Amino acid sequence: MYRKEIKVVDCTIRDGGLINKWQFSHEMVRKVFLALSAAGVDYMEVGYRASQKLFPPGEFGPWRFSMDEDVMKIVQDTQTQMKLGVMVDIGRVEEDDIKPCEESPLDFIRVATYVKDIDKAIDLANHCNQKGYETFINIMAISTATNFELEEGLRQIEAEAPVTAVNIVDSFGSLYSEEVHYLVKTFKDNLPTREVGIHAHNNQQLAFANTIEAIRKGANYLDATVYGIGRGPGNCPMELLLSFLKNPKYSLEPVLQVIEDVFLPLREKIEWGYIIPYMITGILNEHPRIAIALRQDSEKRDKYAEFYRTMTTPECYEAKVE
Amino acid sequence: MYRKEIKVVDCTIRDGGLINKWQFSHEMVRKVFLALSAAGVDYMEVGYRASQKLFPPGEFGPWRFSMDEDVMKIVQDTQTQMKLGVMVDIGRVEEDDIKPCEESPLDFIRVATYVKDIDKAIDLANHCNQKGYETFINIMAISTATNFELEEGLRQIEAEAPVTAVNIVDSFGSLYSEEVHYLVKTFKDNLPTREVGIHAHNNQQLAFANTIEAIRKGANYLDATVYGIGRGPGNCPMELLLSFLKNPKYSLEPVLQVIEDVFLPLREKIEWGYIIPYMITGILNEHPRIAIALRQDSEKRDKYAEFYRTMTTPECYEAKVE
Repeated sequence: MYRKEIKVVDCTIRDGGLINKWQFSHEMVRKVFLALSAAGVDYMEVGYRASQKLFPPGEFGPWRFSMDEDVMKIVQDTQTQMKLGVMVDIGRVEEDDIKPCEESPLDFIRVATYVKDIDKAIDLANHCNQKGYETFINIMAISTATNFELEEGLRQIEAEAPVTAVNIVDSFGSLYSEEVHYLVKTFKDNLPTREVGIHAHNNQQLAFANTIEAIRKGANYLDATVYGIGRGPGNCPMELLLSFLKNPKYSLEPVLQVIEDVFLPLREKIEWGYIIPYMITGILNEHPRIAIALRQDSEKRDKYAEFYRTMTTPECYEAKVE
Repeated sequence: MYRKEIKVVDCTIRDGGLINKWQFSHEMVRKVFLALSAAGVDYMEVGYRASQKLFPPGEFGPWRFSMDEDVMKIVQDTQTQMKLGVMVDIGRVEEDDIKPCEESPLDFIRVATYVKDIDKAIDLANHCNQKGYETFINIMAISTATNFELEEGLRQIEAEAPVTAVNIVDSFGSLYSEEVHYLVKTFKDNLPTREVGIHAHNNQQLAFANTIEAIRKGANYLDATVYGIGRGPGNCPMELLLSFLKNPKYSLEPVLQVIEDVFLPLREKIEWGYIIPYMITGILNEHPRIAIALRQDSEKRDKYAEFYRTMTTPECYEAKVE
């Protein structure tokens, strides 16, 4: 697949940090930055930007905040074509946390939102845009949105927010290819002057496949992470995506090298990937949090059949919808 | 996806045995048999049938041969709707190795072949068919077949072999969804009175996704293995496939239970799954044997970037095509 409009957006540190509260060293993040830059990746999300009033810096690592000073320590004097940015959550960042773009090493800001909060996401994205950043909106938990509210929200973004792209986020890892096709079409129909992106989760080993299906239907902004790192089952693996995209601007070898040097040893310390409890929440279209909690219970973490029974009993279902 | 014609074909022991020379205990195989039967799986391939003159029984475990007596020890007096069978390779089995179906606990035999050997595969399948078995032909290394020879071979099967289904086997794990669509259409066009099946490999985390894509285009015979076990990167995971198929005859829980009881501990002893050298052979459309050899070299097994460089240098390519 070669299409020159396609852009690859790395979220290795930002999404991977959900596993370990962003406790990655500057040295490690610089290695990832250099590898992605050498690989020709278009965008790198270095972490979240969040208010230190809300998240105590002792408990959370530097990439929960991604302060401009920390980002500068990563870039140093390296020349790169790769754009750097952060993700922000509604209500977790204050205006003062974001300096004008010209004073920052960052180029872009992505706003994560649920469909119900699209009004707030537009406000925040426009605030960042006015400060000079390229902006994006990621719509999370897309598999639980009703079509009525989704289409209304997309039309509102089209009318009010000059974002580059709006991303389909399969937070629960529950989508199959035909649903991806349908969503990309819905996004494109309602966002005629915006690009569509996809951020897929790997609960059912479909993150890469669903990214391919989104590409086939016209999505051009593609999220991926090195070795698929990310909360729970993880994300679309960067190495698979770059090898699928036949654009000669991308190189696979730097990504393979950083997997070998950094991610293979890291995987021994923190866990992500195809693990049955995440597969179960994926097929049931549930948030992975209950599977994450199970994995921290040393007695129950591998009691897959029992977990599935619990998740599919009427009592559990009722507790959820109450 | 619910379509009543769909049949699930398990090859856990047969394909998993490629990792450890079929050294699975009868107790383990019986647990798998009971789980699959309880899950409602339609066919179980218990191993290969091969001549003991060619494979010394000391070196190879029982499922390299899958003697009728061994299969009877697995079934015991359990009543099941699941059909049992074996795979045979051309030239590795003799007529005497196959008793008439009425004297055997087996119901079906699948013949594995390359496109170039389809004549021989038809002979062998017809021999088995005359002995009373339901038969199948699996066409291996499909990603290296030319369309001319493939279509000719399929038309020959249609004309000469009363097999139930012919299977697309993505031996190298290199296919993407649009190629799967194309192949299913080619098979259906040339096999109007036969069913089409798919056996996908997981080099690029696409085994389940490609199985879904084959289903969408009309394939009804679907190979899978518990927890995705199989040589190299493994296969389409049974647990994902059963949960995708909405047919109420299938139950997920027995598969989750046997993963927990048998396959999680087994995975500590033998290796399969998403491992970068297999990903590399997949993207390069190469047989996994060179990656399997690499994984047995304790110094080089995780030297991914070097392996990729070697595989993509002109010298290596020339050595291959000579």
